[in-house]
Amino acid sequence: MIIPGDPQPRLSRAAAGRLSLYLRRLELLERNGTVQVSSLALGDALCIPDTQVRKDLAAMGNRLGHPGVGYDVPELITAIRSRMGIDREWRAALVGVGNLARALLRYDGFSSRGFRVVCLFDSDPAKVGKTVEGLSIHSLAQTKPVIRSMNAELGIIAVPGSSAQMVADVLIDAGVKGILNFAPGLIRVPLGVNVVNVDLTIQLEQLAFMVHVGD
Amino acid sequence: MIIPGDPQPRLSRAAAGRLSLYLRRLELLERNGTVQVSSLALGDALCIPDTQVRKDLAAMGNRLGHPGVGYDVPELITAIRSRMGIDREWRAALVGVGNLARALLRYDGFSSRGFRVVCLFDSDPAKVGKTVEGLSIHSLAQTKPVIRSMNAELGIIAVPGSSAQMVADVLIDAGVKGILNFAPGLIRVPLGVNVVNVDLTIQLEQLAFMVHVGD
Repeated sequence: MIIPGDPQPRLSRAAAGRLSLYLRRLELLERNGTVQVSSLALGDALCIPDTQVRKDLAAMGNRLGHPGVGYDVPELITAIRSRMGIDREWRAALVGVGNLARALLRYDGFSSRGFRVVCLFDSDPAKVGKTVEGLSIHSLAQTKPVIRSMNAELGIIAVPGSSAQMVADVLIDAGVKGILNFAPGLIRVPLGVNVVNVDLTIQLEQLAFMVHVGD
Repeated sequence: MIIPGDPQPRLSRAAAGRLSLYLRRLELLERNGTVQVSSLALGDALCIPDTQVRKDLAAMGNRLGHPGVGYDVPELITAIRSRMGIDREWRAALVGVGNLARALLRYDGFSSRGFRVVCLFDSDPAKVGKTVEGLSIHSLAQTKPVIRSMNAELGIIAVPGSSAQMVADVLIDAGVKGILNFAPGLIRVPLGVNVVNVDLTIQLEQLAFMVHVGD
């Protein structure tokens, strides 16, 4: 049962990461017609101890568990989406229209969860004006007016590392509050702007390291 | 100075992640002709405190710092690559030849760091036999003989979530020891096989959460 006005303790990034994993699992259960789930079953599928599951869900500040029954799947999905701020549409601008961008635009997981790419930008004059997945490609000079008119709050950087910082500066100047950065290397942003880096080389290096040490 | 035979304390995954970041930064410095770097300068560019930098580099078990001078950039690059097990070629099999796979195959960051995709697989008969970036696409039935003959140790899963577990099982059966999984949802693997999940939806959800709470 979700009680509006319950205190909401601050959520750590690690806890938010686990909530994403629970959500993914719960959505699968819902598609399969499951309406109740125990903390043990939910954690087991994710290799997370049930004590941690109960702690995470209790920390959401809602009385979600039903003793002897478990959690109501649709109720828990709604609660997690609300807690994470993903119970609404998030509009994103994407810069750099290459293969990665095309893969992201066709990735069902984004749109089905309310993430909508609403405008595309590229520095290549040969691409500007073309249409990809129903969106026309604008020049970088157009970021500010286009991003503002489309109300894009997030930016996705899919350009080479050498131009990532410049693109980030342009996106921030246009008003985006969060950046998903696929370019290698870190980008610097002012306070109040958030960045999640997806450096694929680092992920592959981590994997090699784990295999190397037999982790 | 790297002294062979120095004890190598166990490295945590978090520390290995930071080593990847140092390496990325050091490679940039080297390209720019910088030969010495202080822990302060190295950490500052990555928003990591210099005390943490010195601790991480000391924990590699090598006497790498030179008092009053800092670290020798090429020496440190060599030491980190050796410590992480990425001072050699890693051969990978890639399953699911869509836009994401094409983006990965064209991603310079992989090959320049010794990660080489050596074989491609797809379940779509229309794709089997075709060539992408110089590699021919094999059917899933061919995974075992092809992966073994190509000595691929790593597998990259770029298929929809619904077939990810099946593909993982096939790759593991063929002998891969590490999997980079781009499919949404978790996959189960036996002990001795490592997985790094790159769930783009989770990354975007985390970003939305950070913007939502004003982190």
